[in-house]
Amino acid sequence: MKKAIVLLSGGLDSATTLYLAKKQGYKCFCLSFDYGQRHRRELESAKKIASTANCPYQILKINLPWKGSALLDSNIVIPKHSNIRTPEHSNKIPSTYVPGRNIIFLSFALSFAEGIGAEVIFIGAHTHDYSNYPDCRPEFYRAFSRVITTGTKSGVEQRKIKIETPLIKKTKAQIIEMGRTLDVPFQFTWSCYQGVNRPCGKCDSCYYRAKGFKEAGIKDPLPKGRL
Amino acid sequence: MKKAIVLLSGGLDSATTLYLAKKQGYKCFCLSFDYGQRHRRELESAKKIASTANCPYQILKINLPWKGSALLDSNIVIPKHSNIRTPEHSNKIPSTYVPGRNIIFLSFALSFAEGIGAEVIFIGAHTHDYSNYPDCRPEFYRAFSRVITTGTKSGVEQRKIKIETPLIKKTKAQIIEMGRTLDVPFQFTWSCYQGVNRPCGKCDSCYYRAKGFKEAGIKDPLPKGRL
Repeated sequence: MKKAIVLLSGGLDSATTLYLAKKQGYKCFCLSFDYGQRHRRELESAKKIASTANCPYQILKINLPWKGSALLDSNIVIPKHSNIRTPEHSNKIPSTYVPGRNIIFLSFALSFAEGIGAEVIFIGAHTHDYSNYPDCRPEFYRAFSRVITTGTKSGVEQRKIKIETPLIKKTKAQIIEMGRTLDVPFQFTWSCYQGVNRPCGKCDSCYYRAKGFKEAGIKDPLPKGRL
Repeated sequence: MKKAIVLLSGGLDSATTLYLAKKQGYKCFCLSFDYGQRHRRELESAKKIASTANCPYQILKINLPWKGSALLDSNIVIPKHSNIRTPEHSNKIPSTYVPGRNIIFLSFALSFAEGIGAEVIFIGAHTHDYSNYPDCRPEFYRAFSRVITTGTKSGVEQRKIKIETPLIKKTKAQIIEMGRTLDVPFQFTWSCYQGVNRPCGKCDSCYYRAKGFKEAGIKDPLPKGRL
């Protein structure tokens, strides 16, 4: 059985990606990171999702002491989503950007894949209904693929490890529809950037989740936030 | 004063790179990794070198539970260097290769650089007198530079963080000569892959160190190994 590493944050996208990878016949090894994020609560979600999907799961603890992000630094306020983005702000990267996050995650996933002989790394990144994070764009994944070809034993030996981004061009609504078809346990997923008991309903992540469920015509099983 | 991140392993190459970066006028932030390497002893060396150079220093602990390397797994014997490499072995990557190591190190260095506004990451990789590690080659660093351009806020905002590999084409002897000119404290550096009190004198790393000092006509201040 072919092996895959699946980066699992505990959100809708990565959960859907996991179920998709399973459907494609991969034995999936799920990987999450405890990187000091405010919303560490997402790790409980990731664990539950992996367990529901009957997949091995591990959390790696990493330390980013330089912070530089609202997700890591409680002194920075998590911005509220403004759904009327002016053109000048439409490409702005918000303060919730974590320097190098997906690059670090992929690097560990790559090491894991080489270590256990997995052929593929799945990541649920996409460029619709997202927060302009540069490390969610196709050009970044193409560049990282070149890193694999040139900088690893697998690459040199022509057993290249592939990065799969099956959601890259999907809207949040399409991801949710796909997730429903795959029986993704939406009730266990977590999206909110605030690390509290109920989704705040105000951050970018809550905004896009609510928009996606609304457009898909599906009811979100998580309670509506009121912080 | 311009800031730089310097990846400091505690060996000759990274120590020389640090002194070179300092000479170029950078305020250098040194970064080492405790990644479960057998030769954790190199971290004491790194700390001493950073302190001698009067530079801030931090060690990040990372966990690579999948191992996949003789440097991480005490069940795998560290290979002795064979100085008559047959053509069929000349491009072979040895068991001391650590999956994704420099990719992970660079990813953290990149996050650090974005977090504190550093312009450059220095790494002492080179392709002469080395062990065929793929993540020491110029094509890998070019590929990683493209990751920075496409996958980071700095890249998108045209404040690209540069990777500097000043030793990439130098032989070990040239690095040692350069290090002497820069007053690098060779006596604090550590190269041996075995984590014991004296260099083993037999591993690839000891072999290239000895060869370099011999060719440079300089005496290595470290004791000769006899394991």
